[in-house]
Amino acid sequence: MDSARINDIPRDRYLEHRDQLIAAFEAVRKQTTNLTAGLSAEDMQIQSMPDASPGKWHLAHTSWFFEAFILCCHQPEFKRYKPSYANLFNSYYNAMGEPFPRAMRGMISRPGLDEVLRYRDHITAQMVKLLGQCAAADFQQIAPLLVLGVNHEQQHQELILTDIKHAMFQNPTYPAVFVDQSSIEEEIELCWHFVAGGEVSIGYDGEGFCFDNELPCHRVLIEDFQIASRPVSNSEWLEFMLDGGYEQPALWLSDGWDWCNRKQIRAPLYWVEKTAGWQQFNLTGLKPLAMHAPVTHISYYEADAFTRWSGHRLPTEHEWETASRRLAKDTDDTGSQRWEWTASPYAPYPGYHPSAGMVSEYNGKFMINQIVMRGASEATTTGHSRPSYRNFFYPQAQWQFSTMRLVNDG
Amino acid sequence: MDSARINDIPRDRYLEHRDQLIAAFEAVRKQTTNLTAGLSAEDMQIQSMPDASPGKWHLAHTSWFFEAFILCCHQPEFKRYKPSYANLFNSYYNAMGEPFPRAMRGMISRPGLDEVLRYRDHITAQMVKLLGQCAAADFQQIAPLLVLGVNHEQQHQELILTDIKHAMFQNPTYPAVFVDQSSIEEEIELCWHFVAGGEVSIGYDGEGFCFDNELPCHRVLIEDFQIASRPVSNSEWLEFMLDGGYEQPALWLSDGWDWCNRKQIRAPLYWVEKTAGWQQFNLTGLKPLAMHAPVTHISYYEADAFTRWSGHRLPTEHEWETASRRLAKDTDDTGSQRWEWTASPYAPYPGYHPSAGMVSEYNGKFMINQIVMRGASEATTTGHSRPSYRNFFYPQAQWQFSTMRLVNDG
Amino acid sequence: MDSARINDIPRDRYLEHRDQLIAAFEAVRKQTTNLTAGLSAEDMQIQSMPDASPGKWHLAHTSWFFEAFILCCHQPEFKRYKPSYANLFNSYYNAMGEPFPRAMRGMISRPGLDEVLRYRDHITAQMVKLLGQCAAADFQQIAPLLVLGVNHEQQHQELILTDIKHAMFQNPTYPAVFVDQSSIEEEIELCWHFVAGGEVSIGYDGEGFCFDNELPCHRVLIEDFQIASRPVSNSEWLEFMLDGGYEQPALWLSDGWDWCNRKQIRAPLYWVEKTAGWQQFNLTGLKPLAMHAPVTHISYYEADAFTRWSGHRLPTEHEWETASRRLAKDTDDTGSQRWEWTASPYAPYPGYHPSAGMVSEYNGKFMINQIVMRGASEATTTGHSRPSYRNFFYPQAQWQFSTMRLVNDG
Amino acid sequence: MDSARINDIPRDRYLEHRDQLIAAFEAVRKQTTNLTAGLSAEDMQIQSMPDASPGKWHLAHTSWFFEAFILCCHQPEFKRYKPSYANLFNSYYNAMGEPFPRAMRGMISRPGLDEVLRYRDHITAQMVKLLGQCAAADFQQIAPLLVLGVNHEQQHQELILTDIKHAMFQNPTYPAVFVDQSSIEEEIELCWHFVAGGEVSIGYDGEGFCFDNELPCHRVLIEDFQIASRPVSNSEWLEFMLDGGYEQPALWLSDGWDWCNRKQIRAPLYWVEKTAGWQQFNLTGLKPLAMHAPVTHISYYEADAFTRWSGHRLPTEHEWETASRRLAKDTDDTGSQRWEWTASPYAPYPGYHPSAGMVSEYNGKFMINQIVMRGASEATTTGHSRPSYRNFFYPQAQWQFSTMRLVNDG
Repeated sequence: MDSARINDIPRDRYLEHRDQLIAAFEAVRKQTTNLTAGLSAEDMQIQSMPDASPGKWHLAHTSWFFEAFILCCHQPEFKRYKPSYANLFNSYYNAMGEPFPRAMRGMISRPGLDEVLRYRDHITAQMVKLLGQCAAADFQQIAPLLVLGVNHEQQHQELILTDIKHAMFQNPTYPAVFVDQSSIEEEIELCWHFVAGGEVSIGYDGEGFCFDNELPCHRVLIEDFQIASRPVSNSEWLEFMLDGGYEQPALWLSDGWDWCNRKQIRAPLYWVEKTAGWQQFNLTGLKPLAMHAPVTHISYYEADAFTRWSGHRLPTEHEWETASRRLAKDTDDTGSQRWEWTASPYAPYPGYHPSAGMVSEYNGKFMINQIVMRGASEATTTGHSRPSYRNFFYPQAQWQFSTMRLVNDG
Repeated sequence: MDSARINDIPRDRYLEHRDQLIAAFEAVRKQTTNLTAGLSAEDMQIQSMPDASPGKWHLAHTSWFFEAFILCCHQPEFKRYKPSYANLFNSYYNAMGEPFPRAMRGMISRPGLDEVLRYRDHITAQMVKLLGQCAAADFQQIAPLLVLGVNHEQQHQELILTDIKHAMFQNPTYPAVFVDQSSIEEEIELCWHFVAGGEVSIGYDGEGFCFDNELPCHRVLIEDFQIASRPVSNSEWLEFMLDGGYEQPALWLSDGWDWCNRKQIRAPLYWVEKTAGWQQFNLTGLKPLAMHAPVTHISYYEADAFTRWSGHRLPTEHEWETASRRLAKDTDDTGSQRWEWTASPYAPYPGYHPSAGMVSEYNGKFMINQIVMRGASEATTTGHSRPSYRNFFYPQAQWQFSTMRLVNDG
Repeated sequence: MDSARINDIPRDRYLEHRDQLIAAFEAVRKQTTNLTAGLSAEDMQIQSMPDASPGKWHLAHTSWFFEAFILCCHQPEFKRYKPSYANLFNSYYNAMGEPFPRAMRGMISRPGLDEVLRYRDHITAQMVKLLGQCAAADFQQIAPLLVLGVNHEQQHQELILTDIKHAMFQNPTYPAVFVDQSSIEEEIELCWHFVAGGEVSIGYDGEGFCFDNELPCHRVLIEDFQIASRPVSNSEWLEFMLDGGYEQPALWLSDGWDWCNRKQIRAPLYWVEKTAGWQQFNLTGLKPLAMHAPVTHISYYEADAFTRWSGHRLPTEHEWETASRRLAKDTDDTGSQRWEWTASPYAPYPGYHPSAGMVSEYNGKFMINQIVMRGASEATTTGHSRPSYRNFFYPQAQWQFSTMRLVNDG
Repeated sequence: MDSARINDIPRDRYLEHRDQLIAAFEAVRKQTTNLTAGLSAEDMQIQSMPDASPGKWHLAHTSWFFEAFILCCHQPEFKRYKPSYANLFNSYYNAMGEPFPRAMRGMISRPGLDEVLRYRDHITAQMVKLLGQCAAADFQQIAPLLVLGVNHEQQHQELILTDIKHAMFQNPTYPAVFVDQSSIEEEIELCWHFVAGGEVSIGYDGEGFCFDNELPCHRVLIEDFQIASRPVSNSEWLEFMLDGGYEQPALWLSDGWDWCNRKQIRAPLYWVEKTAGWQQFNLTGLKPLAMHAPVTHISYYEADAFTRWSGHRLPTEHEWETASRRLAKDTDDTGSQRWEWTASPYAPYPGYHPSAGMVSEYNGKFMINQIVMRGASEATTTGHSRPSYRNFFYPQAQWQFSTMRLVNDG
């Protein structure tokens, strides 16, 4: 079983899928190291901004997660690999001790990449041993944390790519770290799908895994609306730019306009203007802009300005989720290649409670100042996302694989 | 007619209330200058932080509003009082020319207070003349802007007090600028009011004036809840502090905890610890903390931390508005003395459109990164607020007359 | 006797010049208030940057100086005017209590200007009474502090003008606070004066007053040099600008180039480019650039860049002082209209010791990171300066009445 | 011949020492890579502050120096190793193209360490070839740049150690990158050496290599003084700390006191307080404080405060140089183990001119805001320094191997 199917297993039947869970765990661990196989020790060391983390840190942190939340609690004779890692590789769990300051992660040269890979192997082996040998009652306690840990590691798989892309972009030689990928070559016509309003169900209502922020499933009233069949494209974004989109304050939120001027933003992140025209930096190097691909690496502020310029608007997360469920039955074309900004500030659902126990800091404490993104991106691990999945970033964040999709009132 | 009743006049019957509207305009103008009568030229000059403005600026800006949006457009022979004021006293209307940088308002010593008062008198007189003499058709065009301008000036009446309080607090001698006011001396028992959920109506549905952000009136689903009969008191806040409320990261949103540590926040704004205990700075000087008064000058971050400590939560703005309408029929005890933080990020209502014309920048462009406050404060002009009124500030803002009220699930 | 002659009185004969000293004290006090007579309460309130102080603060601080160092110590029954002033108007004397933070001086609206003027009158009257009535032995103790206090107040007379100029410049209407003054209309030919090197005497060697940083008088070896007969003019500075002076890193010190780019410096302070050409802001308003006047309001970094561009250099303070003494005997043309940057970092003379007692913090603790200026400016009180006088500012300071004079090796 | 003796070769006799110069060049290149042999790719990648550079960058930059200033100009068929290196590894030579921003050096993961070592080998080989084959006339042109390049590389050898020490200190595990070194175990008695004043000669007057800032040799007048036989020790510094040295503003320069409070400085850099007492971080790890070793890693501000506390003063650079020459004849005990702060701001000597040609940016453009250090440190390459050698750093710099030595007036 690959890690992609782990979330389909009903939460109350983990015990009978013990072997599958173990296999999924091993798969996700291997997937992560495969992902970074082409990167050097130096690539894995650098931290290009406080929001990003070194690749090496991601490798270590995802191991610490299993060590701290499972091995330390459920394997009686377990001895921490290195006591200092509890500080160095704790991200933000205040209940687990003082985390090392985030902005300083790039300053930690030791342990080096080799040692971190040894740490990973050790934790993987210990986990497999524990998962295989523990009593059924223990396994039932461990399994929900295991599934959370696998999903957590999948999230970091995407972050590794997001962060290494940003790191490589600092280098004026624009290094290519991966070989070429295919891209969208042909223009895709835009059409509008009608979605009828009314009382809809929002949030996760399945039997498998979901994050606490997708709960509780609840009823919400929405109006009729129409949603675009594909995201805004690079060529449409160029039109916006050529029409002075970045120079007209009337198109922007007040905070967005300030941000735009303070940071001197004049195009999406990774766009580089050359004599021959705009190019876009990717993990495969600097390439001519793929005109028909979705615009990517835009902030919420930019997405919002584009809606005003185009005369449309962004979907709320309720609308997005409803469209995603309804349209998936008819058609595939909401299938996401990029995370899509919604118009919804990230807030708890009515009746929300954080997960119990030590992992309670996972989602709830970030429910302020951020905007919900929905969908999934080309960098998201297959099977990781779902219609009720809520990703969230600050409105100025550009370094995620973000895009936008337009909506009209019904 | 005093300015307090202006919002009761039906929007389609302004013409037949022409005299009342003129009287309300004159009343609000006088009210503003009365408010600052006890302040010196120097008091009116200082700007204690970029978020605040000098008192003198408020006096001038509220005059510029009538000059720019009414006199310049509707009085043919009108000549601007001074061309430079179009820059100096424009707050943020990019469509009206480049506004002078907000953070620099305290650097403008000229025009002085005397000259600004002459400017006010001139604009008031010109407005009264125009309103009295213009044709009925013109008046019908002008009246909605006039009512908006009066409400705008009422908002600045509160801001004058908010900002001068912050300015005076910078002075280590804690000057008293007003004479003493009565305070709450007795403990008020807390009880819980039950509010039944269901489909409720949210937003303004009357015939008089409202801001564009209160529209459109729309239906929302809410659950049953219980709301406290009064805000959290200073004595309850002291308990929170003594119990380590400001020292436990588990009580705080992640951004709130960062803010708290970066700014070294250990108590609400204006609380000063003396050997004899906590005191609170007011416009009447430094006074012992009024234990049974509502806690005031707290940020959203602090309010949120208090809910976690107390085991309750904040109301959403939908809950607050519903409670306000329902309970006002039975009892007065939701009557506000302070603005109350809700749990709702400030976002447009479904189908929202900004006001047409030059005043379109009034509300919509601030719908990001802010939190809705509801109610009114001791500094709010009587009659200015209503159940659908939406005030909004950044979650770190402490200098408003803010408080919080607790809610439980049904 | 006016305050200009006070420094000629021999230090050991103050007692026999008691009446003259009292008259000089009264004169300097009156001079200061006369200087600010045309400024409004608001003008006197604003602080345009941390380096500058409000006019009102200067009025109060110079009074506090006499109160703290003379009245409090030498008039037994003396009661402080207001205890809070010991904090508010102490500039940087840590030995006299905690000074109020410099950058916050503009936040103090109370006491207002009226009250500060009453404070001044009170201190002046108390001083005059003490000086007239005290015993001879007391007078001999007081007199050196009195003379220091008069010189201190003269320094603040210049700073009032420097700081108010900077404050007025923040106002986009460029207010004129004084009536017009004559200016230099005709080109002044530049000639070079030869000064022979050798062992020279540096520092104050007279019998009157000097600051501690002018002592001890000591011997220094210098080489032959030639010094320009006048400072660099505005027209010469324009040539430097037109030749790309602000765009060539090779002309600049490394720190200077960083400063220039960080602050986007492209001309001296107070130069404003209009369609019709460069204009210069003065206390009399915005005026066309006076081409033959000395370039003014340049930083040391700019002065240094100009020397490299012109192929000359700045004089050391030893050279400047020597030239000043030698040439004054032949000719007047080193007579200063602006403070002249030298090439010398501000450092103690060999054997330097700060003044004894409470005023020991006056000069010595600033002997780092600053550059010596020599001469005097149009804003300096007549008689205040002398050839051994050492003024000093940070190399990036532009807001002083600074200029530069060129030198060649012998 | 090792690189240590290269500076003894008379400048006009380089041609006849061709083989020795080539050998010295090869020796210094090998020395640099030996120095970093124990460091990992990650250690060599990190940049802990803008003032410091990654170890890898030092390896590349010192190669670029020979490539840009010698190979590109003097080997006709020479092709740059990689064009991008001209930007990436240029430190601050504006005449050689735009240098990559200093603060971003740690962001460059590619080229990796392996590739940089290949670059080094290539440049070394090309240089050896050129030096061995070029015509005599060419060699005479190249030789001064070669000697400068060797000295330049020796400077970077020390900086590699300085910067890697700072980088390792960011790691809360305090990694040891080198094996143990011996330390000073016994208290060394302090005695005072008398140095007679008079006219002395300052600057380099030998026949070998020196930097341009040591010239011209010139005459200066100094007074009699006494200089301590050894630097201040750690145990003496502890006394200063225990006596409240870091808490008394009267001991500090005004800028120093601000720095101390802003940065919360309470001890020299690399001092770590543990329950068992103070420890000091070294490249060999965290060790108990060596009480009798010279205090190290102090800023000029701290050194200055110590002089006021102890009642002594720092030597001027003239005094230091004179003492160094005079006492070396009698005794060895001024032999430096640490760079010693002097009281002298870094300024050009009378008649100073920067080196001609492309290397003119080497020293002169830094002659502002810095303080001269004299001597050499345990990290300085043997033979690199001399009595006239002028090192210089900002007064707040702590990360150099700095110490201080006391002086008394004669």
